[in-house]
Amino acid sequence: MNHYVAPVRDLRFVLEELLGHHSLTLSNFTETTPDVVEAVLDEAAKLAGDVWGPLNATGDYQGAKHYPDGRVTTPDGFAAAYQAYVEGGWNGIGVSEALGGQNLPEVVASAVQEMLHGANMALGLCPMLTAGAIEALAHHGSEPLKATYLPNLVEGIWTGTMNLTEPQAGSDLSKVRTKAVPEGDHYRISGQKIYITWGEHDAAENIIHFVLARKPDAPEGNKGISLFLVPQFLVNDDGTLGERNDVLCTAIEHKLGIHGSPTCSLSFGEKGGAIGYLVGEEGRGLNHMFTMMNEARHKVGIQGIGVAERACQHAFAYAKERHQGRLSAARGGKECSISEHLDVRRMLLSMRARTDALRALALYCAAQLDTARHAENESERQAAQARVDILIPVVKSFSTDQAVEIASLGIQVHGGMGYIEETGAAQLLRDARIAPIYEGTNGIQALDLAGRKLQRDNGEAFSSLLNEVADTVERLKAEPALAHLGQALAAGLEDLSAAKQQVLEQGKDPEKGPDAVQGYATPLLNLAGHVLCAWQMGQAALSAQAAIGQGTTDSFYKAKLLSAQFVITQWLPVGRAQRAVIDAGIQCLSDFEIG
Amino acid sequence: MNHYVAPVRDLRFVLEELLGHHSLTLSNFTETTPDVVEAVLDEAAKLAGDVWGPLNATGDYQGAKHYPDGRVTTPDGFAAAYQAYVEGGWNGIGVSEALGGQNLPEVVASAVQEMLHGANMALGLCPMLTAGAIEALAHHGSEPLKATYLPNLVEGIWTGTMNLTEPQAGSDLSKVRTKAVPEGDHYRISGQKIYITWGEHDAAENIIHFVLARKPDAPEGNKGISLFLVPQFLVNDDGTLGERNDVLCTAIEHKLGIHGSPTCSLSFGEKGGAIGYLVGEEGRGLNHMFTMMNEARHKVGIQGIGVAERACQHAFAYAKERHQGRLSAARGGKECSISEHLDVRRMLLSMRARTDALRALALYCAAQLDTARHAENESERQAAQARVDILIPVVKSFSTDQAVEIASLGIQVHGGMGYIEETGAAQLLRDARIAPIYEGTNGIQALDLAGRKLQRDNGEAFSSLLNEVADTVERLKAEPALAHLGQALAAGLEDLSAAKQQVLEQGKDPEKGPDAVQGYATPLLNLAGHVLCAWQMGQAALSAQAAIGQGTTDSFYKAKLLSAQFVITQWLPVGRAQRAVIDAGIQCLSDFEIG
Repeated sequence: MNHYVAPVRDLRFVLEELLGHHSLTLSNFTETTPDVVEAVLDEAAKLAGDVWGPLNATGDYQGAKHYPDGRVTTPDGFAAAYQAYVEGGWNGIGVSEALGGQNLPEVVASAVQEMLHGANMALGLCPMLTAGAIEALAHHGSEPLKATYLPNLVEGIWTGTMNLTEPQAGSDLSKVRTKAVPEGDHYRISGQKIYITWGEHDAAENIIHFVLARKPDAPEGNKGISLFLVPQFLVNDDGTLGERNDVLCTAIEHKLGIHGSPTCSLSFGEKGGAIGYLVGEEGRGLNHMFTMMNEARHKVGIQGIGVAERACQHAFAYAKERHQGRLSAARGGKECSISEHLDVRRMLLSMRARTDALRALALYCAAQLDTARHAENESERQAAQARVDILIPVVKSFSTDQAVEIASLGIQVHGGMGYIEETGAAQLLRDARIAPIYEGTNGIQALDLAGRKLQRDNGEAFSSLLNEVADTVERLKAEPALAHLGQALAAGLEDLSAAKQQVLEQGKDPEKGPDAVQGYATPLLNLAGHVLCAWQMGQAALSAQAAIGQGTTDSFYKAKLLSAQFVITQWLPVGRAQRAVIDAGIQCLSDFEIG
Repeated sequence: MNHYVAPVRDLRFVLEELLGHHSLTLSNFTETTPDVVEAVLDEAAKLAGDVWGPLNATGDYQGAKHYPDGRVTTPDGFAAAYQAYVEGGWNGIGVSEALGGQNLPEVVASAVQEMLHGANMALGLCPMLTAGAIEALAHHGSEPLKATYLPNLVEGIWTGTMNLTEPQAGSDLSKVRTKAVPEGDHYRISGQKIYITWGEHDAAENIIHFVLARKPDAPEGNKGISLFLVPQFLVNDDGTLGERNDVLCTAIEHKLGIHGSPTCSLSFGEKGGAIGYLVGEEGRGLNHMFTMMNEARHKVGIQGIGVAERACQHAFAYAKERHQGRLSAARGGKECSISEHLDVRRMLLSMRARTDALRALALYCAAQLDTARHAENESERQAAQARVDILIPVVKSFSTDQAVEIASLGIQVHGGMGYIEETGAAQLLRDARIAPIYEGTNGIQALDLAGRKLQRDNGEAFSSLLNEVADTVERLKAEPALAHLGQALAAGLEDLSAAKQQVLEQGKDPEKGPDAVQGYATPLLNLAGHVLCAWQMGQAALSAQAAIGQGTTDSFYKAKLLSAQFVITQWLPVGRAQRAVIDAGIQCLSDFEIG
């Protein structure tokens, strides 16, 4: 029952029908035909469903293990499943050909990531971190560093990590204390890092750490921080592995979930200093890291969607199988499965509809990333990047907050069984719960949206996005069967426009602006998430209605239409309440005494 | 840091200022003075804070353990902590003197329960189940049964259990198959029960099971089910313990949370049949059980509030201690604890305000229970009982749903630390997550409200409750400083009245009524929870404003006023969205194909 089937049809609906395979029209992807995409999705579905998915429960149960000598083992099957992924060439699918990758559009890579995270989120984290390392190195590394490290990272033969957090430096990385002392062509790194995902493991032959640290003479604060590459094993000139570097895993965390993913405390320099290499410019470590984190944030949103999808499948399967109670007399009075009870159906439809909507929005964002990178026209690229910048905090935080709620609802559908670990529903909640926290807490995302992203261009990119929503409103209104959805979406759009304007204006105040941004950030983001999801489902309704109008007998379209109806008429209103929250002001937040 | 301090001041505020110690005016409680209540709360706070609370984390970590011979051990310290509770006379505080109890009002007993569940929910379940057993026996047991079993149950020397669920009979208990074969003055019970909370343990010398079973000639369905008392150890005529009865714990569940509370599978009659005694009338087992479950449901709501309170304390303590980032320039620009950031303060205030509101509503309901039992005038008793009947599904499900959200927000406040088990924040989410499921899932509660409770008197009891809300609206509007809260509450009241009316009317339809009730149940309950909580916080605002008007310098009142403002202006709007959800209809729920 606890079996994951990659939602290929749903993913293709978004890629083909909602996005019209726009990314394939970009000159970078002329060799990528729709057939290729289809084949890629089908193959990824096999890897996810047949290889990664079945390990999800045992991975949770066994967890990663740490040994006194610093070794970390991953759960049974993880190393082999990771090797299958590497051998299938999956690690480089979104990487350009120049770097040795498969050069598929981000939107396709995102669809594959969703499957892998849905199948096994703990394992999915390993390549997710490597992708960040590739990004950092490709953009900021010197040619020799790239030549030595990139090919194996792109292939996935080596994995990558991000070493940011220290006990005193979490959301505020300006407090980083790890030291980097110059020595010839390299540096000696020493210090303690915590929360390092896949920081030590047995699934690949080398681990390439990307470490934020300070030179001894570096200034305090953000500007003193540089980025260093620190391999687990040093690499000889001929590319073979040399000595073990001076980095030791001292512990792994005992976490609520993602037990298969080792979260490591790394100690650098216990024997005199780990050898590291500067990546990019001195003092620009945080900037280099953030370029990369923006996309990692998108991937965390995708991860939430993967888990939400699995929670849907799990709850649907149980609800269909569990017989309890009877239909109403009007519906025949027979004994029935709980999936027939309308209150259970409300939970199931709510899970399904929200997952559909989050997926559509996240893949729209991925398609915009493709445009931002590869459109011929520079102004088109810039406009797309500006839109991506607005969307990413929404995709990251809204998808992950919702994933937690969806996984929790999945437990509820199971009743008492949901609380028993063997059922597997509880694992999904435990796993999902990290996603609103890492890669920048959802509060940080909201600040990013309401602050920097909204204020820097006076709300222009945000407004341009809202114009797209307005277009969809008009298209819905023009379709008699969907006009009511157009009206409902218009009301949400009006709320979001007003809220955005209020936050923009109050944010401009040179004195009170920063506090206004902080105080309003979360409700603004929540409202934006609801409206943008409803917008995407408005698009889905138009597609589905068109297919139905053309006489399709495929029940898929009716399901999507109902999903869209639920999102726009039954879920959007909950988000719209955030306008009232914003209208209520933030005085109470500062007046409140914490004690 | 992970230290629980019973919220005595907050509890007293509700008992004394919001409820005006109304229960103490009832003739049954003339000997209970406010001083007595104060002393009881202070003593309970010591037991909760000093004895039960410190065991919460180890209880989670060690969990209960099951052995092949059927024994179950509880975590270190649990048995002693339970004994301290028994020796302090706490088990009988809400039980009448006639039954050997302390005869304190339910509202006081509820306040004590909140403390104990906040301190240690897993341990708190043990006496919670015993209370149900006492209720069942006192109301329905024969005199000899009562004489033999009640005194030790009331003292807590023996504990009680509820044996309802079987693998095929969960929410639908009509499917119960456990057999009871008459033999002389007793019965021989055989069958399998699952999910039996504290069904086997080492904290008391005997366990008295209350078991739903069928006589061999009993009809199918609900009417064939009777209630039986089945002791773990038989009791000799002189009251000493005799032989072990034929009931064996075959396994305990591996659960998401409440690890210290053994959830047992019990096998009755593997050696020929456990000896059991009929309680109440043959064929009325479900009715007898449900009388009792109504109050158990109130206790589950209280449990949610206990955990929510602990989550608040935990998050507040961490936020004050964790330094990260800086104040805005307008606020001085200094480095600060995260409790100074407005977005963190939004989480903290939201947690605190919701917990305040849930507590006020649950204790109001407890006070109505006192009136329902002890008012001199019968019509007053009946009116109070009718109000209790409306309130209990709301208190049970809304408090527990919110407790899950509050505990989850508590994790979020901790950032990465929240995901690490040692911190303790995650345990609160894991523990809280059962409460929306047991004692009737929250879906079942919603059906109870929108169906039986609303429909049976044509909405009269519900309307009478709404009249109380309307009175509070008028009082708020008459107070210039609070008039805006009166307007906001009025808007919520209007939504709830309209929604109630719609569900009432559609529910009347003899054909479509049952489906309408099912489809609208959850949004109606959610809306009711928000409006009734806002109503109680309107009362709190009036009390606090009066104290402030009289020149109090106690910052407690300002905090309560802010809490009320948050609930009414920033939380109520989210609930009000459920009116739009109800307006959107339920067609999509039945049209939706589950596949």
